Amino acid sequence: MDNEIKASIPWKIYKYDASGMCEQEDEIATEVPLTIKLDGEEFATIVCTPTDMTDMIIGFLASEGVLRSADQITDLSIDVDSGFAHVALTHKHTRNQEMVAKRFIGSCCGKSRQFYFHNDARTAKTIHSRHTIRVSQCFKLMSMLQQQSAEFRSTGGVHNAALCTADEIIEIRTDIGRHNALDKIYGHCLRQRIPMKAKLLAFSGRVSSEVVLKAAKIGSGILLSKSAPTDLALRLAEDLGITVVGFIRGSGLNVYTHPERIVES
Amino acid sequence: MDNEIKASIPWKIYKYDASGMCEQEDEIATEVPLTIKLDGEEFATIVCTPTDMTDMIIGFLASEGVLRSADQITDLSIDVDSGFAHVALTHKHTRNQEMVAKRFIGSCCGKSRQFYFHNDARTAKTIHSRHTIRVSQCFKLMSMLQQQSAEFRSTGGVHNAALCTADEIIEIRTDIGRHNALDKIYGHCLRQRIPMKAKLLAFSGRVSSEVVLKAAKIGSGILLSKSAPTDLALRLAEDLGITVVGFIRGSGLNVYTHPERIVES
Repeated sequence: MDNEIKASIPWKIYKYDASGMCEQEDEIATEVPLTIKLDGEEFATIVCTPTDMTDMIIGFLASEGVLRSADQITDLSIDVDSGFAHVALTHKHTRNQEMVAKRFIGSCCGKSRQFYFHNDARTAKTIHSRHTIRVSQCFKLMSMLQQQSAEFRSTGGVHNAALCTADEIIEIRTDIGRHNALDKIYGHCLRQRIPMKAKLLAFSGRVSSEVVLKAAKIGSGILLSKSAPTDLALRLAEDLGITVVGFIRGSGLNVYTHPERIVES
Repeated sequence: MDNEIKASIPWKIYKYDASGMCEQEDEIATEVPLTIKLDGEEFATIVCTPTDMTDMIIGFLASEGVLRSADQITDLSIDVDSGFAHVALTHKHTRNQEMVAKRFIGSCCGKSRQFYFHNDARTAKTIHSRHTIRVSQCFKLMSMLQQQSAEFRSTGGVHNAALCTADEIIEIRTDIGRHNALDKIYGHCLRQRIPMKAKLLAFSGRVSSEVVLKAAKIGSGILLSKSAPTDLALRLAEDLGITVVGFIRGSGLNVYTHPERIVES
């Protein structure tokens, strides 16, 4: 299905360092625009790394509320050269522009007004899992995430998302776009019908509101990240029952929400 | 005009490090959704840092091809609490959904097919500037960019974009979104009618195709970044006459395109 092109290509650069200038070849992350057509109609254009594109499309469509399971796709073809993906569904998708854009303003936690879009309010699930993880396991998973991404090592320009148990990485997905990396994981879970019980997400990028909403849609009660969160992300995480652990670097980390799932080693 | 809220807020965290766990207060970057209405009609929703929002809205609308100068706005009001910005224009904006989404496939450099959207092909200018900058000035500007961002230092979760001369930073803008930081600079330039002659952009984030297109719209012949570029970004930069300098860290940097503007110190 995926007629993939390479995730990185060589590029001639002029490198300056303490010893002066030299001309050399560098590895650059590939970026391609992909327009998704639903039953012949343009739905969205995504700029992405051209790997695991079937996973990404399915994860993206599920995240947008277009489908709930991979079975709802009857046909999916990708033509990277022309930049189009054609998706046929079992059900007729009717885009309700008003509903997609309109904001859903709840007051779920009683303290602050939460901002969701209708779409997100419909697809993001509140997580009730009592599964816990040790601090030492957080460090180990984040270290494995960085080690396992070859593209990150060679190009420095991509994000990684991984589906994990407390002890190991099950699947890792890479993309120049933070959201795409998570959509690739989501699509993989849907295609393989992987239950989220006792699983969690490890992520290289910043934790914005959209990242927390994606974690809720995927069904992960714990979100580990190397980077910083935003306040809106943390408010949504509190509300949706997601434990956000950020700034996992070396031997330090911060637990921002639902600390009951993080236990000292 | 901008009824701004703070760019960061305190948040109670559980911090784990080599000495164990402690409860403390941390600074978190603020994130707000802002829906822009053009003459009463919803145009787009941006998730952003609530600072310099007037600049951001004007830069975003110019970048989207809705306006060419700040004069074309007759009224602009922002209500951060409700999350809406109301913009009135001198001209009637007709959104041509087909034109916005459709891809413009050129073959400008004869070697590879370039991907633009119609909108970008219409608003991105090819840069012919012969202005140069020394390698030592690249290092100095990037170091100043990091030093001058208080939010980055306190929260670690934002991107910075700066309008510079070869020797100093003129304006710096910060946002949780890479594109927003550049739109804030663009809007500032338009409002203050700042000519781009002998000016350039310094940027903390990764250089994707959209970042290069924004630099071309702003009219900057040189784009300095701390991070990595993508291949599509570099193809567009070659085509649009933009010098991309990336991975500016410590005493090393890479020149990816149009090296004629970078001279050894």
